[in-house]
Amino acid sequence: MRSLLLSRRDLDFLLYDWLDVESLTARPRFAEHSRTTFDAVLDLSEQVAAKHFAPHNRAADLDEPRFDGERVHMIPEVGEALRVYGEAGFVGAGMDESVGGMQLPQTVAQASLLWFLAANIGTTAYPFLTVAGANLLIAHGSPEQVRTFVPPMVEGRWFATMCLSEPQAGSSLADITTRAEPRDDGTYRLSGNKMWISAGDHEMGENIVHLVLAKIAGGPHGVKGISLFVVPRFLVGTDGSRGERNDVALAGVNHKMGYRGTVNTLLNFGEGRHTPGGEPGAVGYLVGEPHHGLTYMFHMMNEARVGVGGGATALGYSGYLHALDYARTRTQGRPLGAKDPAAPQIPIIEHPDVARMLLAQKSYAEGALALVLYCARLLDEERTAATPEEQSRAHLLLDVLTPIAKSWPSQWCLHGNDLAIQVHGGYGYTREYAVEQLYRDNRLNAIHEGTHGIQGLDLLGRKVVMNGGAGLTLLLETITETAGKAEAAGGEPASHSDALATAAARIGEVTTTLWKAGDPAVTLANSSIYIEAVGHVVVAWMWLEQLLATGSREDDFAEGKRAAARYFFRYELPRTGPQFALLAGLDRTTLDARPEWF
Amino acid sequence: MRSLLLSRRDLDFLLYDWLDVESLTARPRFAEHSRTTFDAVLDLSEQVAAKHFAPHNRAADLDEPRFDGERVHMIPEVGEALRVYGEAGFVGAGMDESVGGMQLPQTVAQASLLWFLAANIGTTAYPFLTVAGANLLIAHGSPEQVRTFVPPMVEGRWFATMCLSEPQAGSSLADITTRAEPRDDGTYRLSGNKMWISAGDHEMGENIVHLVLAKIAGGPHGVKGISLFVVPRFLVGTDGSRGERNDVALAGVNHKMGYRGTVNTLLNFGEGRHTPGGEPGAVGYLVGEPHHGLTYMFHMMNEARVGVGGGATALGYSGYLHALDYARTRTQGRPLGAKDPAAPQIPIIEHPDVARMLLAQKSYAEGALALVLYCARLLDEERTAATPEEQSRAHLLLDVLTPIAKSWPSQWCLHGNDLAIQVHGGYGYTREYAVEQLYRDNRLNAIHEGTHGIQGLDLLGRKVVMNGGAGLTLLLETITETAGKAEAAGGEPASHSDALATAAARIGEVTTTLWKAGDPAVTLANSSIYIEAVGHVVVAWMWLEQLLATGSREDDFAEGKRAAARYFFRYELPRTGPQFALLAGLDRTTLDARPEWF
Repeated sequence: MRSLLLSRRDLDFLLYDWLDVESLTARPRFAEHSRTTFDAVLDLSEQVAAKHFAPHNRAADLDEPRFDGERVHMIPEVGEALRVYGEAGFVGAGMDESVGGMQLPQTVAQASLLWFLAANIGTTAYPFLTVAGANLLIAHGSPEQVRTFVPPMVEGRWFATMCLSEPQAGSSLADITTRAEPRDDGTYRLSGNKMWISAGDHEMGENIVHLVLAKIAGGPHGVKGISLFVVPRFLVGTDGSRGERNDVALAGVNHKMGYRGTVNTLLNFGEGRHTPGGEPGAVGYLVGEPHHGLTYMFHMMNEARVGVGGGATALGYSGYLHALDYARTRTQGRPLGAKDPAAPQIPIIEHPDVARMLLAQKSYAEGALALVLYCARLLDEERTAATPEEQSRAHLLLDVLTPIAKSWPSQWCLHGNDLAIQVHGGYGYTREYAVEQLYRDNRLNAIHEGTHGIQGLDLLGRKVVMNGGAGLTLLLETITETAGKAEAAGGEPASHSDALATAAARIGEVTTTLWKAGDPAVTLANSSIYIEAVGHVVVAWMWLEQLLATGSREDDFAEGKRAAARYFFRYELPRTGPQFALLAGLDRTTLDARPEWF
Repeated sequence: MRSLLLSRRDLDFLLYDWLDVESLTARPRFAEHSRTTFDAVLDLSEQVAAKHFAPHNRAADLDEPRFDGERVHMIPEVGEALRVYGEAGFVGAGMDESVGGMQLPQTVAQASLLWFLAANIGTTAYPFLTVAGANLLIAHGSPEQVRTFVPPMVEGRWFATMCLSEPQAGSSLADITTRAEPRDDGTYRLSGNKMWISAGDHEMGENIVHLVLAKIAGGPHGVKGISLFVVPRFLVGTDGSRGERNDVALAGVNHKMGYRGTVNTLLNFGEGRHTPGGEPGAVGYLVGEPHHGLTYMFHMMNEARVGVGGGATALGYSGYLHALDYARTRTQGRPLGAKDPAAPQIPIIEHPDVARMLLAQKSYAEGALALVLYCARLLDEERTAATPEEQSRAHLLLDVLTPIAKSWPSQWCLHGNDLAIQVHGGYGYTREYAVEQLYRDNRLNAIHEGTHGIQGLDLLGRKVVMNGGAGLTLLLETITETAGKAEAAGGEPASHSDALATAAARIGEVTTTLWKAGDPAVTLANSSIYIEAVGHVVVAWMWLEQLLATGSREDDFAEGKRAAARYFFRYELPRTGPQFALLAGLDRTTLDARPEWF
């Protein structure tokens, strides 16, 4: 039985035929690897995801983590799955061998992760956050911090969390009030309340390593006064042994619409329930320099944002495969215009409106998958390309693509899940079918790690103007280059090349117009519309890239890619026309709306 | 405290300033009524909805109906609310005094119902279905059937259900297999399985009256062989007393994503668990003529479809009010371009992107409300207008608007709920806030009473071509007339009149092009896109109508209407441009997609 998680055929096409991941093995960092090891990792990922993650996805939704006032209870399958995941070495898939990692290309590590996200995003969130935490420490922690905290994470024995938000400071991190007071021994004592902390407390593994944003007294106001701390749940002895309980207390858990397997917590630091060394306050260790915490966190967050896009993609992809499976087997009705009511019913995939919903889902899921893997590939270029110029080029592109890789799948793969339910009719609305959970789980992705609105501000307010607009210029050049190749290729690709080139040019014009407005409030008023329009152009580009990679293949797989690309160019890309027109007109409707009018 | 259900100010504006419902009291049928009685009904509706329906909305979601193999258990608040609803006479709000009704205009009855739908759609579904069943019997039942079954429903003591779907026949009613065998005494014995039966079994009230589609042996194939039967859960004695248990057995309940308070069942007719009169088969009474069942059911269904649109609207409206309330009180961040991180945070309603999400919700909810009430007003015209010509005009318009009034709110008010969650950020994703349930509840509305795709086929395949296209012609004339009035009015309305007139003309052109294709498969391939585009034009028309009704008012309410109309004309109506272009091109992408390509 197929797993209905992702399509391995599609993954192979994207990784090998399109992104030429095999060529990375020529680089020193990946010299130990080969297509054989990549394939082995992907095979094992699918197997472990299907065997240990997918089976309890619904159970973890129906029987969510429970807080009895003392500790969190959850179904044992979650811990068991994470044990298998850790033992297989997946936590360190992309990390250096020196910390126990597999040192795989990020592109392959991302592809591996996608299987687990598709199978059970609620359980996969635990290692997802742990990888992010480990990478953050590897990038900015002291050698001792790395030595102490990272290997147990890579071994799957310790987990990590990201503690950013507070009840009064969600999107506005400038307003966090958690305080850190220095002690003579170089440590700090933290106190404050953190909200929305995923995986914040549980009884799995041996320790939880909180990465916490807090303010050191006397620092600057706002985001410039934020520092980053490691705050383990249990202090760690010099020999790595688990020591005293730290002053981090679970204050409550949130009950969510979906994504329920991931316990989401309110944590109190320095509440005094535990007093390490007899003193109040949670013991924390400063990471890097004081007041640079947000910069460090954003380093992690950029990877996490692409990861969130990957999660949204995986749920969209799995929903598509479920809808496809249902549409192939469910019979209902007869062809449009058929007259004989006694004729047998046909599989619903043969109804054009069902085909439309499947093509839409395919175009979203496979388009998003291409984008997420493309971003992972850029990360590999950024780190291992032969020249600093190539590395810098990748860095620029990745910077500008990151908010899109986060927000586009979160919006459109959720819409894909909505269509997956619709294909199922009433069945899709019941908890007996997978798609209703995928839809609920996926709804989170436009909220966490920076809301849709925040991504729009990040793209239009920062990414397209930083470095003198070099990132955007490079992106548009790259897209135009693809359009040129498509034009030269003839056939199906050439039929879409003009539309893509025109859309890319339109992004450039509209961006210039917006930034000439002379008032940031006017420029940014419609930044959510901006990121949606740019996102659609970027995914159209991904589709043209895929068409070029199919070349002259004439099998069903290639025809499917062509049909989905046609769908995207005919039904989706044209949505951007009115959006760009609105943006070019510097529309003030939302800016001028007065609160008392509502 | 405001109830956050609907805006009474807006309802009053729509009913009195726009639709001039008061003028209906000049008609004989409504002569006993006045604005005073209308207001009293609306006052009482809001009070009962807020006091008896809203408080257990979440409880009924968390503690859904449970089937122990024998009977259905549900929280007692549901039955208590329905008792109050019944005793207040709301079931018969729009029905004749002769059956115990209030004989209110449909427009007022619909407005009354909306309060309950907004407060608790799961509980309101029980009387909603009962009203539909009673109206069906009043329209097509024998005098004896009306006398026997309708008054106890109007009194709130009996409930009704609609039994159409079967496991193998959801959208395709032609394929139902439930059989009805005639008996010498004029009754029938039914056997078969019905699926998705809302309110199909429970212990509230004294009886449940099932209205069942079944086939009499020897009838024609397909929909032309379907007959309609009344099948009460308990047989009824000649004196109206409750008799023997009928052979209708509860086989199971479905567990849904939302709308959980409404028990949704699988019913077996003629299973033999009960044998009335010692004979197997469920006793049923034929309604009207044999083989005309679907026509009768569609009479009911058309009203029910506008009612489903009303439910979607009510959920969208309540979600909007919740989001608005949150956006006014939650502070977060600072104005775009503000530099001082020590300045106090501002209410999020002041962020343009939040204002955008609120304007969108307002434009969807208030636009949908206008459409639903407009349809109810047409029903009043159809029944009570002074001349047959006026009645026929209303009938034509209502026919063509019905699939739109069902599908547009189901799509866009759900999107409004999605935005309501987004305005709340992480809080909106938790079950502690109302909006996540509204979103889950609303997801059903694009599925039941005919899916979105079915509505598109109904509009493009039937409604715009029947009667020689008279309905569509009349609709476009009516829209164009509004555009003309707006042009003449000057000011804000005039600024949108061209866009509306152009869009209406475009509908006409595109419809002609589609029907000239000469192949119904090509004509109908994109009927879902067609209904979406036409729906947006219709709602733009509703907005221009509202602007005209605000006249020269300069208060906040009128300014709010203008801002929402501007939003709709600038952000929403332009979406139809690419849709009409696709339709005009007779796009074959979905038609040509082969199953094996996916």
